[in-house]
Amino acid sequence: MSILVVGSVAYDSVETPFGVRERVLGGSATYFSTCASYFSDVSLVAVVGDDFARQDRRFLEGRGVDLAGLVTEKGETFHWSGRYQGDMNEAETLDTRLNVFETFTPDLPEAYRSISTLFLANIDPELQLQVLDQMEKPAVTACDTMNFWIEGKRDALLELLPRLDILLLNEAEARSLSGETNTVRAARVIRDTLGPRRVVVKRGEFGVLVCGPDGFFGAPAFPLETVIDPTGAGDTFAGGFIGALDRDGTGDEASFRRAVAYGTVMASFTVEDFSLDRLKRLEQTEIDQRFAAYLAGTRI
Amino acid sequence: MSILVVGSVAYDSVETPFGVRERVLGGSATYFSTCASYFSDVSLVAVVGDDFARQDRRFLEGRGVDLAGLVTEKGETFHWSGRYQGDMNEAETLDTRLNVFETFTPDLPEAYRSISTLFLANIDPELQLQVLDQMEKPAVTACDTMNFWIEGKRDALLELLPRLDILLLNEAEARSLSGETNTVRAARVIRDTLGPRRVVVKRGEFGVLVCGPDGFFGAPAFPLETVIDPTGAGDTFAGGFIGALDRDGTGDEASFRRAVAYGTVMASFTVEDFSLDRLKRLEQTEIDQRFAAYLAGTRI
Repeated sequence: MSILVVGSVAYDSVETPFGVRERVLGGSATYFSTCASYFSDVSLVAVVGDDFARQDRRFLEGRGVDLAGLVTEKGETFHWSGRYQGDMNEAETLDTRLNVFETFTPDLPEAYRSISTLFLANIDPELQLQVLDQMEKPAVTACDTMNFWIEGKRDALLELLPRLDILLLNEAEARSLSGETNTVRAARVIRDTLGPRRVVVKRGEFGVLVCGPDGFFGAPAFPLETVIDPTGAGDTFAGGFIGALDRDGTGDEASFRRAVAYGTVMASFTVEDFSLDRLKRLEQTEIDQRFAAYLAGTRI
Repeated sequence: MSILVVGSVAYDSVETPFGVRERVLGGSATYFSTCASYFSDVSLVAVVGDDFARQDRRFLEGRGVDLAGLVTEKGETFHWSGRYQGDMNEAETLDTRLNVFETFTPDLPEAYRSISTLFLANIDPELQLQVLDQMEKPAVTACDTMNFWIEGKRDALLELLPRLDILLLNEAEARSLSGETNTVRAARVIRDTLGPRRVVVKRGEFGVLVCGPDGFFGAPAFPLETVIDPTGAGDTFAGGFIGALDRDGTGDEASFRRAVAYGTVMASFTVEDFSLDRLKRLEQTEIDQRFAAYLAGTRI
């Protein structure tokens, strides 16, 4: 089994109550593929500028991520700048420079088209559709999105949703997409009327709520006393989640729930340091231990 | 086994997006004892005015609640008036009239002093201390509080905390009591430095987070598509939780967690209608079914 991710590779400038980092490695596909690489083979499709550092490419290669689909264009890499304050539940975007990402049209290498699991990270739903159309027949198709597309590219998104096994989004996005205030109802309405087989609502420090064919499933976050930088939490949740799902391969409800637990655990590591710094020193035994601790701390 | 609750019996005037109710039955001890009565024998200590309706007394008696400690004073019953808007996660208090509650000094009937489980609902911590001092040696002492006392009667509260097996409070209260922004850390700091054996942080629609001798335990809320009136959710959580704990009687971690699940289930019924209207028509089979559904929806 293997995974294809299409999304952004970026440089981020981030400010949290714990410090400031300028132009550190980020991007949805970066966070996702790093985490998913602990579970399965990952291939990445994205674009970077000619400023993309060799050491950042080497880090991804070191994690075993296949970069045959990482295109380098003349110009600057996508740059996001944001700030977290107070309880850090929401990022305030200070600046977004798409740069080389602005004209990005994903063209999948031939070998990628038969990959079994596809993750469409948060990019323009028109591009997400283009990617999906190039795939032969993925066993699992999952997708993330954001309010910018829900409001601005609603038609393309609505065309994509019935083709998804899994839609990931946060609470505000679920409300906006469904027009419902109550998050539980929002998840159910999206599933019943818009077509994805499973809706996974990411609630940050409150965990996730899933609406699927077996009804609702709720899972708390891993309890952390210190959150240094929430950037990438959602994408690393997706990486651990989709990674574990692909590794397991059974596709049943129990496998799905274990995968959610792995996603939760991976996200909890990510936020313990800036950028991908915690993931860069993350050992398999730490994942195993925290997964066991998470199960022990949620068992009724 | 049996339970003693000391708290308020009140009339509430409530406005939510689903309607308005004037002078309906409420109060922490009312909600608590109604829910706990599904699990164990409950005795109630509180004060009402001579306006307290016979039908409301009869309802509590009908649930088997021992009202020998319910004092009637000349004057009006405690009256709270509040409003919920938007996602209804927080009540806006419009008016609080303590009335007969203002001069309330709980004096326990002799027979109550040997009761095994004590729940000190949210009242002045000086009164909570007075009640605890009148008890012989409860096996379990649990307590709820609020920011008003954390800020205004901190010394009395700090005297009470080391004598508690269980402290229940919400996230804002946990932050205020501990001085910590992070809820996980707040719960741990309260337990480590202020003395209660277990800290149960109520997070409304996001469930509860517990810090206890076995570490952290997280439990999501029961997923509800419609919340009509959140009033009493916390007190009915406490009622189901303490009720199930008292019924089980083992006091081990597994029993504690099942009790949290029962509290979660009872709270989910309460908010499905105004005042105690849902609880008035609640059948034991409904509790059993929802408890089973809750376990099924949280199992990993």
